[in-house]
Amino acid sequence: IGMVSAKAVVLASKTKKVWRDDPRRVLHSMKVGLALAIVSIFYYVNPIYDGFGVSMMWAVLTAVVVMEYTVGGTLSKGTNRAFGTLLAGALGVGAHHLAVLFGHRGEPVLLVIFVFLIGAAASFSRFIPEVKARYDYGTVIFILTFSLVAVSSYRVDELLELAHQRLSTVAIGAAACICISVFVFPVWAGEELHDLCAGNLEKLATYLEGLAAEYFREKDELANVHVKGEHDDFSHAYRPVLNSKNTEETLANLARWEPPHGQFGLRHPWKHYLKLGALARRCAFHIDVLNTHTTRCEEDPHLSSTEFHEKTMRACAQMCSASGNVLRELASSMRKMTEPSNARQHLKNSGAAVESLTQQVVLGKETVLFGVLRGASMASLLVEIVACTRDIAASV
Amino acid sequence: IGMVSAKAVVLASKTKKVWRDDPRRVLHSMKVGLALAIVSIFYYVNPIYDGFGVSMMWAVLTAVVVMEYTVGGTLSKGTNRAFGTLLAGALGVGAHHLAVLFGHRGEPVLLVIFVFLIGAAASFSRFIPEVKARYDYGTVIFILTFSLVAVSSYRVDELLELAHQRLSTVAIGAAACICISVFVFPVWAGEELHDLCAGNLEKLATYLEGLAAEYFREKDELANVHVKGEHDDFSHAYRPVLNSKNTEETLANLARWEPPHGQFGLRHPWKHYLKLGALARRCAFHIDVLNTHTTRCEEDPHLSSTEFHEKTMRACAQMCSASGNVLRELASSMRKMTEPSNARQHLKNSGAAVESLTQQVVLGKETVLFGVLRGASMASLLVEIVACTRDIAASV
Repeated sequence: IGMVSAKAVVLASKTKKVWRDDPRRVLHSMKVGLALAIVSIFYYVNPIYDGFGVSMMWAVLTAVVVMEYTVGGTLSKGTNRAFGTLLAGALGVGAHHLAVLFGHRGEPVLLVIFVFLIGAAASFSRFIPEVKARYDYGTVIFILTFSLVAVSSYRVDELLELAHQRLSTVAIGAAACICISVFVFPVWAGEELHDLCAGNLEKLATYLEGLAAEYFREKDELANVHVKGEHDDFSHAYRPVLNSKNTEETLANLARWEPPHGQFGLRHPWKHYLKLGALARRCAFHIDVLNTHTTRCEEDPHLSSTEFHEKTMRACAQMCSASGNVLRELASSMRKMTEPSNARQHLKNSGAAVESLTQQVVLGKETVLFGVLRGASMASLLVEIVACTRDIAASV
Repeated sequence: IGMVSAKAVVLASKTKKVWRDDPRRVLHSMKVGLALAIVSIFYYVNPIYDGFGVSMMWAVLTAVVVMEYTVGGTLSKGTNRAFGTLLAGALGVGAHHLAVLFGHRGEPVLLVIFVFLIGAAASFSRFIPEVKARYDYGTVIFILTFSLVAVSSYRVDELLELAHQRLSTVAIGAAACICISVFVFPVWAGEELHDLCAGNLEKLATYLEGLAAEYFREKDELANVHVKGEHDDFSHAYRPVLNSKNTEETLANLARWEPPHGQFGLRHPWKHYLKLGALARRCAFHIDVLNTHTTRCEEDPHLSSTEFHEKTMRACAQMCSASGNVLRELASSMRKMTEPSNARQHLKNSGAAVESLTQQVVLGKETVLFGVLRGASMASLLVEIVACTRDIAASV
């Protein structure tokens, strides 16, 4: 009993966390409940039930599976379901009429062959990336409906009426879900994508600002006084950006289904967010490598006590804080949907910091300096890669 | 018409590519068709149909949605579906008995309230990461079945028989799918995960070996003769590793559902693959940054003509090819499930290359050298980060 209650406490705290992280999740749950309740009420009202009968069940079924967190998700699933059902229903009725020609014994054989062929072909189409991204659910529904119509056509007499009833009830269920998700506290996939991208830039900025404040100032002014606790606060900030690709792609796919809303027009360039996301990820990869370097230097402070190191550190601090400011400004102007004019200024600062690096550590010509830096950096990276392979070897 | 036929050609070539990339996909499609055909045959056999009636439809429905590419996927969906249906069916019958107590007018009201509450609570539970990862589908089926049973209990008299029929037919459909995916050309999620991890190590090895052969030798021996075409062959090899996290996590989740198979025991440490994957990704991030550096150096060959650069390049070439060899050996011993004894030797070589770097470029004490390298690397990385922020700024 102690085990069970301990697990219950853990579950409760996790539930609370999910709630706090995004209160809209509670709203979404209520919306699902609402959609189900509305469709159920249809079932209890006699005139509607008399029209559709047991087929009304399909409206409930549709409501459960179509209702998604974002408007784009619900729209995509709803239209996929409706068109998948329509197409498969028509094809199923056609298959029935063809099979009937082969007599009572030939009919089931032919129907099974049809189900096998259509099922296999449609399943294969789900592997094509374009189909997978946009019509995966529609394909499943297509296989489902075709099989159901083709199979039950052998037993049911009024096939057309059955198909018609099913299509209507699916449409009712889908329409109820779409209305609720569009009009009751809508969560737009486009807005989520916009916020995600801006949030990712902010996360990178938080890391760079933190590094500039804690690490480089520490080296400059506080010498060897380590403030580990505070360092840890920001040093994981950029992590979520490393693996944001899937979320971004899913949201961008869903955003294309959405009607214009808020500040986003009909043909808002959603694909552009993927490009921005790729650039932010690239920056995050560099930051991840940089983070390894700073951690290594902290572990062994003697490493960094050379003249060369001290000379470059000031320029590093400048580049770091200027880049952080650029990203912060870009994120905030993204959120406000304004021109990033402040960011331009910070961009000039970061360019100036790169310039000052070349002036502080003149080893001959400027071009030579970068060669030295790049060469040293490459060597240093390969030393890290050797360390990586050692870790991997220990783990295999 | 020209447009349509052009699109058809594109689609056909894409289909062919999907086919060639992994012929098992065709087998999977056939297996889906087979599962559907078998369940359909049940529908046509009179004795079975007489036992279940129209409920047999649920077997078809189950077969369509439960059949997944991997054995783990099918097992996970099948058991999720069966237990979700069982639990929700029991709860639905209970809710019906409770609601009946409130008379003919109170019953539908109470049922709608139940559907709303259970629907909302179960939807919310889907946001909890643990539930999402393992029981997401079961929760959907739970909501679905509960709503259907609760709602139709108002109209249907023999509720228990209906629930029993539905559960049996769902079990038949799920069992058919599980048998087919386990016994007919099974695709094990565990094996896929194992291959993915070994393949990722090979991809990293390909890049490092390619770099050692094309780039560093080119610098050493061929001077400025650029062989762009060949460089491009390997320079994208590591890319898929950067975003492999989601696939790995999904496969690891599915692998836990699978029975022992091949070389994998019952409690094979699937979580360990996630750790290995994280290390490989970390290595890929470093390689991505290294790739930026080598590209920049190629763009402007004058950058790299310093004495310091030339001195370090030989050590770089050694570290690069030794690391590549380590990864290649590790991958091959993973595939053969043997001890990586050859890799140990290559690991020693890469360690020796790091040593020789410190000897070739002695700038005083060894520790100081690494300080210089790290400092230079940090500065170089921050220069790249500044460039990144400029790209991002241009893209916002």
